[in-house]
Amino acid sequence: MKDRQSVSIKTVSEKLGVSVATVSRVINGTGSVSPEMRERVLRAVQELGYVPNAMARGLRTNSLPLVGIIVPDIVNEFFSRIVLNVQLALAQRGYSVFICNTDERHDLEQMYLASLQTMQIRGLVCISGYDMENEAWPEVPTVYIDRNPETRVSDSTSIESDNESGGYQAAQEVLRRGCRRVALLTDDRRLSTAVSRETGYRKALESAGLPADESLILTVSRVDEKNAYDAVSYALQSGKRFDALVCCTDWLALGALRALKNAHLSVPGEVKVVGYDDVSIAAYSALPITTVRQDVDEMSRLAVEELVRMMEGKPCRRKNWIVPVSLVRRETT
Amino acid sequence: MKDRQSVSIKTVSEKLGVSVATVSRVINGTGSVSPEMRERVLRAVQELGYVPNAMARGLRTNSLPLVGIIVPDIVNEFFSRIVLNVQLALAQRGYSVFICNTDERHDLEQMYLASLQTMQIRGLVCISGYDMENEAWPEVPTVYIDRNPETRVSDSTSIESDNESGGYQAAQEVLRRGCRRVALLTDDRRLSTAVSRETGYRKALESAGLPADESLILTVSRVDEKNAYDAVSYALQSGKRFDALVCCTDWLALGALRALKNAHLSVPGEVKVVGYDDVSIAAYSALPITTVRQDVDEMSRLAVEELVRMMEGKPCRRKNWIVPVSLVRRETT
Repeated sequence: MKDRQSVSIKTVSEKLGVSVATVSRVINGTGSVSPEMRERVLRAVQELGYVPNAMARGLRTNSLPLVGIIVPDIVNEFFSRIVLNVQLALAQRGYSVFICNTDERHDLEQMYLASLQTMQIRGLVCISGYDMENEAWPEVPTVYIDRNPETRVSDSTSIESDNESGGYQAAQEVLRRGCRRVALLTDDRRLSTAVSRETGYRKALESAGLPADESLILTVSRVDEKNAYDAVSYALQSGKRFDALVCCTDWLALGALRALKNAHLSVPGEVKVVGYDDVSIAAYSALPITTVRQDVDEMSRLAVEELVRMMEGKPCRRKNWIVPVSLVRRETT
Repeated sequence: MKDRQSVSIKTVSEKLGVSVATVSRVINGTGSVSPEMRERVLRAVQELGYVPNAMARGLRTNSLPLVGIIVPDIVNEFFSRIVLNVQLALAQRGYSVFICNTDERHDLEQMYLASLQTMQIRGLVCISGYDMENEAWPEVPTVYIDRNPETRVSDSTSIESDNESGGYQAAQEVLRRGCRRVALLTDDRRLSTAVSRETGYRKALESAGLPADESLILTVSRVDEKNAYDAVSYALQSGKRFDALVCCTDWLALGALRALKNAHLSVPGEVKVVGYDDVSIAAYSALPITTVRQDVDEMSRLAVEELVRMMEGKPCRRKNWIVPVSLVRRETT
């Protein structure tokens, strides 16, 4: 471990029998490399204990530049995967990344922003949460993911999934299969991501010539399996009938499936269900869930690329990024 | 939001129609309160924007005391739940908590410890990862969770699940049901937690008068679904036969289930499977998984209690805590 600095990019490339350029591309996150090669290189980097130059410099001078990540809920796999990707990529560039979990609470967000300010962070990544204004926001380059606030710092970019298209694709999937009473299960907090998904859902229904039926918009006050189960059970008990349910997350879809099973409604026979995100549970649930996949890797890659550009004093390439989503068809439709 | 400080514990108690003492118990994490009441109070605290005194003081003086959390992989739900619990409880006591995700890499751990040192943290929580020695460890009160290093700072405590009992209970569960060729699927990195689980498994076999069969110890180099699938598929293709499989995590159990299905072996008919952790996937998988439940809430509670004691200059109550585990019986045994 003491001889860590004698391990160079060359050592890594020799061990793997690949070019120095390939190793460098992986480490610096520049250029394209196949996922398999990326994995092999990162493994070797780890096994050999290679420390990128930027990081080595920081360790020597004890002045590692800091980046903060504000995230509402790290137990949510969609968020934790983005945090992990961003953090590892930034660490490779020599940045210490501090993860601040706000539990979607304004007071905690404010507390963290004050601390990060004191720590003189160089940049900030802010994932989702309420679209709240915050006067304490540090004036550093900022990347907003899944959150596009009206007031924002000058050096900033926002990265979102194409949620309107996602909502549209989800509804389209069940309409194509003949469903005519398509319900929506969403978050009652009106986050911008949920609103866009609802807009897409409404447009798909409209395109199919179906009237909007507000009684088919079901909401939960907290996005989890249990609340979804309760909301869907209650809707069924109140006599609401639908032949499809478009859910704003995979966990909502999971709770909906349990409620439908409990009410002896077959899926996809009597009711078709679509989730959103494509987290692990969608693929591994008892009935694998058809879902709208968010491209977490691309979102993280863009976030790091743009943040590093801004921290190096260059302008970001765009002020708003919309990342395409795709439908993953499984057994609930 | 400007008037945040005018919201007091009394405001919260009045809104809910409960006593000030109850609200105070929840906020300070002292005394016992039902989970429902705890949830109600925390909701109200959040809705009203109440800031605990310690936190309010910190915000005013801009000198919030910091605590670092070192975690190997926040995408792992077992870890992320502990981090979330610890962080929220410490935030209620007025500490900013910075989460450092090390990806189990010594170089990243070192980098974070150096940064935390510079930030003059008051305490540290270190979750799992390799049992590596680290000369850069800051001399601050430290709580080790799922990790009990030989050399550690003077003010420290370690908190672990009773992993030996967990391994024993898992093997016992399938032995009781008549299994005689009980395989183990574990991590080849020999982490202390995995070693203890293996010890328990071996003791259960010994108690049942079964000879140890080293060919039934299957290992993976990375603990995930895919590696488990590959390892179990390979074992079956090499002609290994077993009537039960004790897995060191739920994700390993999930990969094992896929391999068994692929080999047309019925579960629990021909092969019984037990997981470990009781993360969400165990309950929601196609075949709900019998597993050994780690008491995440109790581990987090102890961690916060002991860390706060030490940060306040009091000695910790114990140097080592062993938290009981329990078997959760589902459909794979």
